[in-house]
Amino acid sequence: MKDMDFEQLDVGYDVPALPGMKADDIQTPALVLDLDALERNIKKMGDYAKAHGMRHRVHGKMHKSVDVAKLQERLGGAVGVCCQKVSEAEVFARGGIKDVLVSNQVRHPRKIDRLAQLPKFGARTIVCVDDIDNVAELSEAAVRHGTQIECFIEMDVGAGRCGVIGAENVLTIAKAIDAAEGLKFTGIQAYQGAMQHMDSYDDRKAKIEAAVAMVKEAIDLLEPVGLKPELVSGGGTGSYYFESNSGVFNELQCGSYAFMDADYGRILDKDGNRIDQAEWENAFFLLTSVMSHAKADKAIVDAGLKAQSVDSGLPVIYGRTDVEYVKCSDEHGVVADPDAVLKVNDKLWLVPGHCDPTANVHDWYVGVRNGVVETVWPVSARGKAY
Amino acid sequence: MKDMDFEQLDVGYDVPALPGMKADDIQTPALVLDLDALERNIKKMGDYAKAHGMRHRVHGKMHKSVDVAKLQERLGGAVGVCCQKVSEAEVFARGGIKDVLVSNQVRHPRKIDRLAQLPKFGARTIVCVDDIDNVAELSEAAVRHGTQIECFIEMDVGAGRCGVIGAENVLTIAKAIDAAEGLKFTGIQAYQGAMQHMDSYDDRKAKIEAAVAMVKEAIDLLEPVGLKPELVSGGGTGSYYFESNSGVFNELQCGSYAFMDADYGRILDKDGNRIDQAEWENAFFLLTSVMSHAKADKAIVDAGLKAQSVDSGLPVIYGRTDVEYVKCSDEHGVVADPDAVLKVNDKLWLVPGHCDPTANVHDWYVGVRNGVVETVWPVSARGKAY
Repeated sequence: MKDMDFEQLDVGYDVPALPGMKADDIQTPALVLDLDALERNIKKMGDYAKAHGMRHRVHGKMHKSVDVAKLQERLGGAVGVCCQKVSEAEVFARGGIKDVLVSNQVRHPRKIDRLAQLPKFGARTIVCVDDIDNVAELSEAAVRHGTQIECFIEMDVGAGRCGVIGAENVLTIAKAIDAAEGLKFTGIQAYQGAMQHMDSYDDRKAKIEAAVAMVKEAIDLLEPVGLKPELVSGGGTGSYYFESNSGVFNELQCGSYAFMDADYGRILDKDGNRIDQAEWENAFFLLTSVMSHAKADKAIVDAGLKAQSVDSGLPVIYGRTDVEYVKCSDEHGVVADPDAVLKVNDKLWLVPGHCDPTANVHDWYVGVRNGVVETVWPVSARGKAY
Repeated sequence: MKDMDFEQLDVGYDVPALPGMKADDIQTPALVLDLDALERNIKKMGDYAKAHGMRHRVHGKMHKSVDVAKLQERLGGAVGVCCQKVSEAEVFARGGIKDVLVSNQVRHPRKIDRLAQLPKFGARTIVCVDDIDNVAELSEAAVRHGTQIECFIEMDVGAGRCGVIGAENVLTIAKAIDAAEGLKFTGIQAYQGAMQHMDSYDDRKAKIEAAVAMVKEAIDLLEPVGLKPELVSGGGTGSYYFESNSGVFNELQCGSYAFMDADYGRILDKDGNRIDQAEWENAFFLLTSVMSHAKADKAIVDAGLKAQSVDSGLPVIYGRTDVEYVKCSDEHGVVADPDAVLKVNDKLWLVPGHCDPTANVHDWYVGVRNGVVETVWPVSARGKAY
């Protein structure tokens, strides 16, 4: 094709790029994946999990993409996905993922009904339970549809969100699940989300040791009554090495390692190095363009609050120290440009503060290798919040 | 219809409600519009604009909805819309809005090419210019498509973002537009965005007086050379009364007044009253459900960062003082419930911190009147960030 042929983009909807285009010609703002970096991240975590005898159930809520999940299966040996909503799980199951965990509670009758139909897509279906009242609700729906719903009991191991506290509560609910028609007690969900972003390796380690102790206590109650959990699942990008060496967990649920973001990148590994320098590569970028430079010392770019989430801080401009993204409004970013080095239509590669909610506002990932667009993937489960 | 028939929701995609359903049965998280409040807000601002001889070009970037824009035309006498991106403008023009301003700069050749085709949908097309180099780019595209692009010169009247500073710069660009084939110099864009959210009425007034002085200076240069602006456009929910009484502006661009949000609601009117109590009603809600209550003193709800933007603070729970939304993560909100009054599947009506980027993550508005779903509108320009 020609150097640039924008007419080809007239496909009836807003696709930001087409395969074969130069990365410089991507319409902005757009999410861009560095495919080489993404593949290296995926392979690295996959190799780690395999070497430590861990199943890796990748967190699909991070990328919401069937294509990325399949890459994680192919290159990283992922056993399936977890995600947070039934509508997300439907996307992954319909897309061919065969082992899907909704790592969250499902309580509304309509959502439970949808959950109970997931096995019809050929997916092993697991859900988290933290309330004994939920057991009968799930059982009734599974029986109605002639399917099986597997259950994890979610323990609150320090995150302070969903999940039961205490081994006795786990035992009580496990027995109820075991006795319920259409359900199977499969294991324990023990994700310590609150510590993943603590900067200090030692602080994170202490939090996970407490979590492991809680899980162990529950297992010690379950085993004697024949309810040994088949799976003990948890772990994230800031902690997977702790769970992998705990002797208790056998399944990881990492998400952000594949993309990285500015906030996660700042946490430190055991040697005190930032993980986005020592451990994982930035593979996820928000490409933006300068669209106004009417004042000499600031450039205005076209990626604001509708192209990213700033809940975990502003984006960082990748590979540049001469300019800085200093302010974000609905459709604009203000970039301090003290030496006036930027020109209109110049592109900047932003590393968003938080990858998950940033991916959720976009419809497309543009996959780039060696400066050329190789693929355009839908953000398959974008907006699937039910 | 029956009290509740979730089967009817099986329409092949995730619609959160259908007309006729009870508001209590809306699938959450979902955006809900109180149609009575919305209509009253729209009529009130329309009446104000009419009484003050102002055109009201409603800001479509706030709601991104053709249906809401048409309601603003019908009940509020709106003359058309403004929006921030060419892809948004396409949605409004295709949807039948006949006067569309892209209140922003358009600089990439592909986007300029799309802009120049907007008049083919029957829409008067206006764009903002803040760089003389943009004039030739726009002219070339208009000539190529045989259309006319009208131009506002954007002045930076204190927001510190896009826009030229100084009357001389306005004059220079206005002359260039006037001389360019396919373009028409139509007016001045002077939106002081930075002051809209200042709490104090007097602080806002001082900022607008400075803005008005700048615009007046530009008009004083333009008139003698036969370039009197037909339109002087600006004003927002926090300032429209200043522009309306300035003797300089003749067009308003209000957006948030129609929906209101928690952040805007906190600013004060001239009597020191919050505007969400004295001036505008909350018409825009994020409906959420309790999905876990495993700890006695906190409920976990199903609306987190993927159902709203928290850039301007956490949401407020409407009509409740006994419970408080205290923390937001990707898919969860933590609600402090000290007296354990909430139960699983209870619904809460959240007033989001910031309406614009919250609307942008949803696909649907559910319009409710008297507790019954009356309409389901698409967020027509959701994700249109190009």
